[in-house]
Amino acid sequence: MKFYDCTVAPSPRRVRIFLAEKGITVPTIQVDLRKNEQFTDAFRTINPDCTVPVLELDDGTRIADVMGICVYFERSQPEPPLMGGGAKDSAVVTQWQGRAERDGFFAVAEAFRNSTPAFKTRALPGQDDYVQIPALVERGRERVQRFFNVMDSRLANSEFVAGSRYTIADITTLVAVDFAGWIKLAIPEDCPNLRRWHEAVSARPSAKA
Amino acid sequence: MKFYDCTVAPSPRRVRIFLAEKGITVPTIQVDLRKNEQFTDAFRTINPDCTVPVLELDDGTRIADVMGICVYFERSQPEPPLMGGGAKDSAVVTQWQGRAERDGFFAVAEAFRNSTPAFKTRALPGQDDYVQIPALVERGRERVQRFFNVMDSRLANSEFVAGSRYTIADITTLVAVDFAGWIKLAIPEDCPNLRRWHEAVSARPSAKA
Repeated sequence: MKFYDCTVAPSPRRVRIFLAEKGITVPTIQVDLRKNEQFTDAFRTINPDCTVPVLELDDGTRIADVMGICVYFERSQPEPPLMGGGAKDSAVVTQWQGRAERDGFFAVAEAFRNSTPAFKTRALPGQDDYVQIPALVERGRERVQRFFNVMDSRLANSEFVAGSRYTIADITTLVAVDFAGWIKLAIPEDCPNLRRWHEAVSARPSAKA
Repeated sequence: MKFYDCTVAPSPRRVRIFLAEKGITVPTIQVDLRKNEQFTDAFRTINPDCTVPVLELDDGTRIADVMGICVYFERSQPEPPLMGGGAKDSAVVTQWQGRAERDGFFAVAEAFRNSTPAFKTRALPGQDDYVQIPALVERGRERVQRFFNVMDSRLANSEFVAGSRYTIADITTLVAVDFAGWIKLAIPEDCPNLRRWHEAVSARPSAKA
């Protein structure tokens, strides 16, 4: 098994934290996105879509998707459960994970990729070129600020994002909040619940992954 | 249990097809998005984010998320499995479902919502106002056309989107392809594999859901 990673990138960090919480280590190969190593011919044979993370299984199957990789490890090593327990719990975790991904992570990415010179023609992840759209910078920032407020309200009544247990919804939210630092947005002072939560999840050893 | 639905909308259709494949029926309440019923005070108490679908469980828990609702039913009634079997299979299904959602469904939504007069100030789903960004219409259409090609290549070597079995990845792809009709994009002639697959999955009784 091999894990294609890039230590400075937020998407693979979601998987690294997941693995750290499970106590799983996987032989890892670094793909330096800052040097465009994802566009080399060698990496295109691993993932034609030119993104990390990628998990390569021993039979050669490659999973080039954060959630796909997490599902793989959740099924192969269920403890500790990070994607919910029974039907209801799993549904709640899935809902909040999705929300953190769409309204948090993707919103930061929208503002970041549309404003950073290095992404001039690569405003979306993947192998295809898309030019930057300046209006998305402001929209992305606005979405992130609303996301902070939504999560603050949620965490007023809940220890973790999806309830009383740490789950993948916390991982996605944590990575989104830290990624927001890249567009110079931090949790506002008037979001005390989100700040309390952020301090707690950042103190877990997995947050260093 | 109650399912808040809107028969003409593509997001809840993903759940309806999922339920039809499982042979599950749930008491359903229609929320007419064309009449803005999602913005009524009554519906805001059900889902403050003003979107459908929503599943309300008997204990009052509400799941306002397509994937969350599907996970609920997959866990409570595993047969037939629509989200994969073992670890590897589940990972592959999750990967393709995610791809169909991001590169297919969300791309169509991007082109549709940014070009349709009724969504002038509601270019993103949810309760918050976001004005239309004209550049996203062309970008969305370009993404959908690339999605058709990616899925055609995939289906050259695979009976269904995630392998030899019909799964939620087929549901998301089917709904995305049909939703593309709303922006007047159809599967191109030079995508014979995607056409063959679309004909097959559209012939299943669940496609009428």
